[in-house]
Amino acid sequence: MKLNIAVLPGDGAGPEVTAQAVKVLKAIAMEFNHVFNFTEGLVGATAMQKTGIPLPEETLDLCENADAVLFGAIGNTSYDLDPNAKVRPEQGLLGLRKSLGLYTNIRPVIAYEELLNKSSLKKRQIKDTNILIYRELTGGIYFGEKFLSDDGNKASDICEYNRFEVERITHLAFKAAQSRKRKLALVDKANVLESSRLWRRIVQELAPQYPDVTVDYLFIDNAAMELIINPRQFDVILTENMFGDILSEEASVIVGSIGLLASASIGDKHAMFEPIHGAYTKGANKGIANPIASILSAAMLLEHFGLDDEAALVREGVDKSIKLHITTPDLNTKYDHITTTKVGDFIEDFINNPDETNLN
Amino acid sequence: MKLNIAVLPGDGAGPEVTAQAVKVLKAIAMEFNHVFNFTEGLVGATAMQKTGIPLPEETLDLCENADAVLFGAIGNTSYDLDPNAKVRPEQGLLGLRKSLGLYTNIRPVIAYEELLNKSSLKKRQIKDTNILIYRELTGGIYFGEKFLSDDGNKASDICEYNRFEVERITHLAFKAAQSRKRKLALVDKANVLESSRLWRRIVQELAPQYPDVTVDYLFIDNAAMELIINPRQFDVILTENMFGDILSEEASVIVGSIGLLASASIGDKHAMFEPIHGAYTKGANKGIANPIASILSAAMLLEHFGLDDEAALVREGVDKSIKLHITTPDLNTKYDHITTTKVGDFIEDFINNPDETNLN
Ligand SMILES: CC(C)[C@H](C(=O)O)[C@@H](O)C(=O)O
Ligand SMILES: CC(C)[C@H](C(=O)O)[C@@H](O)C(=O)O
Repeated sequence: MKLNIAVLPGDGAGPEVTAQAVKVLKAIAMEFNHVFNFTEGLVGATAMQKTGIPLPEETLDLCENADAVLFGAIGNTSYDLDPNAKVRPEQGLLGLRKSLGLYTNIRPVIAYEELLNKSSLKKRQIKDTNILIYRELTGGIYFGEKFLSDDGNKASDICEYNRFEVERITHLAFKAAQSRKRKLALVDKANVLESSRLWRRIVQELAPQYPDVTVDYLFIDNAAMELIINPRQFDVILTENMFGDILSEEASVIVGSIGLLASASIGDKHAMFEPIHGAYTKGANKGIANPIASILSAAMLLEHFGLDDEAALVREGVDKSIKLHITTPDLNTKYDHITTTKVGDFIEDFINNPDETNLN
Repeated sequence: MKLNIAVLPGDGAGPEVTAQAVKVLKAIAMEFNHVFNFTEGLVGATAMQKTGIPLPEETLDLCENADAVLFGAIGNTSYDLDPNAKVRPEQGLLGLRKSLGLYTNIRPVIAYEELLNKSSLKKRQIKDTNILIYRELTGGIYFGEKFLSDDGNKASDICEYNRFEVERITHLAFKAAQSRKRKLALVDKANVLESSRLWRRIVQELAPQYPDVTVDYLFIDNAAMELIINPRQFDVILTENMFGDILSEEASVIVGSIGLLASASIGDKHAMFEPIHGAYTKGANKGIANPIASILSAAMLLEHFGLDDEAALVREGVDKSIKLHITTPDLNTKYDHITTTKVGDFIEDFINNPDETNLN
């Protein structure tokens, strides 16, 4: 298979971890005789430094013409602390999501047996957790009209959804549930928000089309609690943009490190793959950022194109790195000095020689 | 002291737990020679069943003329599952908060030594956690304009804040931090929301007035993770309405049961005290609802009027009940059949005879 992959390393630790994912994809291409072409583009604070804008036209073109986008991270502390900044790195990421029509963000939360003791949660709470979060990604309060009064004393954001936006991701979430444990949980705040009631109404309407799927309805406050006290109750979680942002980052505590969580952002025409951790500015360029989330995002990329054996091999490499403690310090108490690059190298080696790779 | 207390038991387990708090307040009045007058009012689904509306005029009058309101719970599963309902129990609670001007909701999250093993989190993660959440309660997306198109296919909610609303609670939160560990964390989503940037700007502006307080800024997604992996880093958390709703319910996992979390909702003229757990419909009328959150809300009521010794005695009673395992099933594995009422009776007895109370 021939794939043109746009690579957007972005900010902070983005470049380091993305380099490992690219390395892994190259090894896969070699091993399975695929042709993967990688072209880099600028985005985020990095793009702002070089071009003044977070999402240059050129980058958008690159992504629009690519088969898939591999995204690193975005964000920069100096903008975070400056609420007056007119242009922000995040606009790069949000602009991409919107322009490419990536309305479904899929975030798997899977507890690794070997890492159960890394979690803040008790082992017995989290063992066998396997959740797929379906987060709506191009609507809601992220993209509704924003307002700031001239005197700067009043500000607002609109959370807005229409039937079409809710229906398309709801169908996908129901289908995902059908291929899993056949449970769907809608998370909203329908006791307060009109937009949440729209979600609840539509999910209720569509549910009869998926009679084999059991549907639960939770309010976001309650879901934020249930996710911790009983994560195993969940199979597929469907939710709107902002609630999905919160729940998926919260869910990282189950897995033991946010450096493990991958995601796929899917639209009708385009697809983008990115770790859910952000720029991790304070850990950037120290060789300590965990590349696994980025590498697993690459695995999701492969699966997106039906390359399931290839993805399985990547996942095996990740599993093995975890089993052998070839992991960055967020997960590692056994060996020091296993850097971002070393983890990538290990998984690359594994792909090249699945039967021979050991601690080297 | 003479206090007129409006009692609004509300829905689900609200009446049961509120009855225990009233019992405790009566014991305190007796012991300390206060005159507490209690007058009950209807609210929520219960009020809807009897009067058609969730916040009858009479109830509002009662609360407006009272020195304090003791609130039970609100909500009813049948409305939760009916996104088309025009009138909802929650409007009773939200209406009260707004009409009484209760703009500051204070939610303490304190890990009880004896209950550390009840938490989903590992003991060493949570030991000594002591957080005060300052949640803005009368603004934001809860009260912004709502919209539903005539064909029902489009819906929106506005999240809106103005300087005044942000400033008044920010000052209170800073002052609270000054009397504690002098740390304030603002939680927002300033990388995406204009309203969050208003919060961040104002907190930055006011910070120099409180030079002894260290201020941290966290995005809500990150805060939802940090609250679990390192709750001890927090002292006072300041946040807007919806984020406060989510974070405070999530924080209940630290304490081991949402049945322990009390809250005070304070305005310039009025004050209301309520457990943060909701109606708990499925546990209602079974004697299993934990009354401690409601009893601790009563303690916060006492503190609000400067009755610190009285509140301390209530808290001692609660501590003792926990130490002796006189608790409802959410916390109890030692003794069966300790009902909501028995927990209330125990704490009442303790107040009457602090030195004598034992398991009876
Ligand atoms: C960087 C930020 C805009 C982004 C979001 O809020 O969506 C991030 O937190 C994420 O979850 O991908
Ligand atoms: C019942 C509901 C409207 C309420 C809220 O969201 O504020 C509750 O969850 C709370 O936290 O007091």
